[in-house]
Amino acid sequence: MTAPQTLDALASFLGQRLSRSKSDLDLHGRSESHFPPMPPDAVAYPDTTEEVQRIVTLCAEARVPVIGWGTGTSLEGHAQAPRGGVCVDFSRMNKVLEIRPADLDVTVQPGVTREQLNRELRATGLMFPVDPGANASLGGMAATRASGTTAVRYGTMRDNVLGLQAVLADGQVVRTGSRARKSSAGYDLTALLVGSEGTLGLMTELTLRLHGIPEAVSAGVCAFASVEDAVNAVIDTVQMGLQVARIELVDAATARIFNGYAGTGFPEQPHLMLEFHGSPESVAQDAARFGEIAADHGAGTFEWSAQEEDRRALWTMRHNAHYAVLASRPGHRALVTDICVPVSRLAEAIGATQADIAQSGLPGPILGHVGDGNFHAILLIDPAKSQDQETAEALSHRMVERALDLGGTATGEHGIGLGKMRYMAREHGPGWEVMGTIKRALDPHDILNPGKLVPQPD
Amino acid sequence: MTAPQTLDALASFLGQRLSRSKSDLDLHGRSESHFPPMPPDAVAYPDTTEEVQRIVTLCAEARVPVIGWGTGTSLEGHAQAPRGGVCVDFSRMNKVLEIRPADLDVTVQPGVTREQLNRELRATGLMFPVDPGANASLGGMAATRASGTTAVRYGTMRDNVLGLQAVLADGQVVRTGSRARKSSAGYDLTALLVGSEGTLGLMTELTLRLHGIPEAVSAGVCAFASVEDAVNAVIDTVQMGLQVARIELVDAATARIFNGYAGTGFPEQPHLMLEFHGSPESVAQDAARFGEIAADHGAGTFEWSAQEEDRRALWTMRHNAHYAVLASRPGHRALVTDICVPVSRLAEAIGATQADIAQSGLPGPILGHVGDGNFHAILLIDPAKSQDQETAEALSHRMVERALDLGGTATGEHGIGLGKMRYMAREHGPGWEVMGTIKRALDPHDILNPGKLVPQPD
Repeated sequence: MTAPQTLDALASFLGQRLSRSKSDLDLHGRSESHFPPMPPDAVAYPDTTEEVQRIVTLCAEARVPVIGWGTGTSLEGHAQAPRGGVCVDFSRMNKVLEIRPADLDVTVQPGVTREQLNRELRATGLMFPVDPGANASLGGMAATRASGTTAVRYGTMRDNVLGLQAVLADGQVVRTGSRARKSSAGYDLTALLVGSEGTLGLMTELTLRLHGIPEAVSAGVCAFASVEDAVNAVIDTVQMGLQVARIELVDAATARIFNGYAGTGFPEQPHLMLEFHGSPESVAQDAARFGEIAADHGAGTFEWSAQEEDRRALWTMRHNAHYAVLASRPGHRALVTDICVPVSRLAEAIGATQADIAQSGLPGPILGHVGDGNFHAILLIDPAKSQDQETAEALSHRMVERALDLGGTATGEHGIGLGKMRYMAREHGPGWEVMGTIKRALDPHDILNPGKLVPQPD
Repeated sequence: MTAPQTLDALASFLGQRLSRSKSDLDLHGRSESHFPPMPPDAVAYPDTTEEVQRIVTLCAEARVPVIGWGTGTSLEGHAQAPRGGVCVDFSRMNKVLEIRPADLDVTVQPGVTREQLNRELRATGLMFPVDPGANASLGGMAATRASGTTAVRYGTMRDNVLGLQAVLADGQVVRTGSRARKSSAGYDLTALLVGSEGTLGLMTELTLRLHGIPEAVSAGVCAFASVEDAVNAVIDTVQMGLQVARIELVDAATARIFNGYAGTGFPEQPHLMLEFHGSPESVAQDAARFGEIAADHGAGTFEWSAQEEDRRALWTMRHNAHYAVLASRPGHRALVTDICVPVSRLAEAIGATQADIAQSGLPGPILGHVGDGNFHAILLIDPAKSQDQETAEALSHRMVERALDLGGTATGEHGIGLGKMRYMAREHGPGWEVMGTIKRALDPHDILNPGKLVPQPD
């Protein structure tokens, strides 16, 4: 069967849910990134696992690539189709299948977004805490091992996917994990699929860990004289076992941009923004104890509040940082970097990055999930200046090389996609070839998201 | 090269550190379990990763099995050698290589035991919390994805191994993970190796997550009228987000045995034993709040203490439960079961197990890590009664079948080894074949711990 025949066969059971319209192909060939468009040959909108299975089986017969698609919020071009093929858009598989409050878990289809899930959970007093900023689909978040501001307390998708159902390259449906909280029964296939970026299977169901909405929350913000002081306060906080729910760094450049965007009056210094979850007593104590740690590192007053309104203003600002940064230079576009280093090397990594950025002449405010050692520089590119893209890429490259020198990783949470392939050999050494061996064993014809993640034939 | 030649080649560089003495072979052919002895052909005591690499390479050439050995505390016969081969005993690779307090991590050789690690950490104010009871080696704990009483708060080995170095079946040394706290860079090879029971690689270094020793600890114990009441109190505790560090159930039979062993005066009822970690204020509050929850479920007073002496007495008793149970029937031996179910089904699973045990006539006290839904019945076998072993195995079988019926797993923390192979097909369905595909890809000649974990050729 040739590829056009495959598309006809798919259309015969998907009907209107197989799209070949130019606008659909264009949309699914792009992502929120700087890579050139790479459209698929068709976009399928399955409703069921069985349909996904039929799609994969038909494509496998004709060696047609199959690429999963969530909400298109990848920053590294994960879902672009460099070899064409069929994009499987999970937006119709968006049901919350079962909430089990006594077990603190939920089973969802992959197209459910995190905001949708939290809306549907509201009446239960439970929440799904992983928050990458974008209102991404949970399938996409699992595929990229996403995290965000709350990982320091609640972990990443690695920690919050208890099990899943996936369609493998041979069309087989597997279930991984169980509904037990832990297990020693064999290879951890859940963990193997989480972060595999659609190269080993298409996830069609996810069972996720839930957490109680905390009884009380406190949040606050604090200016430091230097990034180093701020990072040392983070290290002390973590070492003392103070359980922060979020601990975010914004550098002086970001504070200035917040002021311009939202009319706030932050001093133009590095800041930490924190949140604590617990009982009314414990969040007050935690805030007070952090205030002492911050003072030890020369910070000004730690202003905190347990009022929802105040907290919301703080985190809305943090979540809008990306837009605030873009708005600071109308017409520019962003290249968002993403490295993660041991916390002990974080001040050094940020300092050296700031020096590189200053020398480059590009605007590049820095924000980070510093409890994890993860930070981003948002590098602003003027499309009118032909050099800017190259300068930004060189900056990102230096950041990654430095992260690897410091024992860190090329990507804390954005994934490999197209953007970080070149670092896999250095980061993993022979381990990258092991990934390739696993990929070839499970997908010998390279059907699933080809061109991504594993070593490519010359 | 034939197998005897392989042993000679190993002896040529290991010298006295390759043992073929009968006592050594016998010791390494046994485990703390009911399986018949299956000795290896030789026991190697390497000092370095390079030596492990040479051992694996030489054995691979001659297709000689290689089996890792930690402290021999497996309850499922993981390290027994049904096909002979070379047992690699890691007891000489027992150095703590580097403690990094600012990053809350440590790199160790696999033969370091958890008690040794915690002794060496003492001056740092940090601890490694995973506690399976036995003073197991960290390599063995990682290989079986062990956990224990503290998993409800600190997670299992899955959550606490940040990265590792391993020798694969082809003799290659790989490093997985990085020193960053999180990463989205490719397949999670760390998670694939943790729990792989020596079938994919021999771990030669582990980087582990550490936690601050809590400033304050409170612990206490509380009797309930029924297992169901106790489990419902657990569910409420977890749902309310009360952060317990341990929450253990002992049934009425176990309470009776404690009284006989240690002269305690527990009512012969189910009990919960709890521990909270935090600040002096928070652990007092947590204990008080748990007391309210317990009262809602008809419990008597929750007696708690923040005194180290009192806590130590409580947990010493819990940790000695295995010996107390054995001492209750001198001359008997134990078959320790290990299932894990969704917490919502825990009362049902324990109740049905108690009924089965009562009907069997065997003594079988129950203890469990109930925050995770994991529990054990310690089935006591009289060697003089030929039926007892069979009765105990039938009870264990019913427990596992029930766990799988309830959405749980055949093993919460003891692993597959020889004892749980028969349940892999049912628990994982086609996923078990996927494990076999991965195994064949990475160990095509079936050198590493053959006969375990994955589907076996007919």
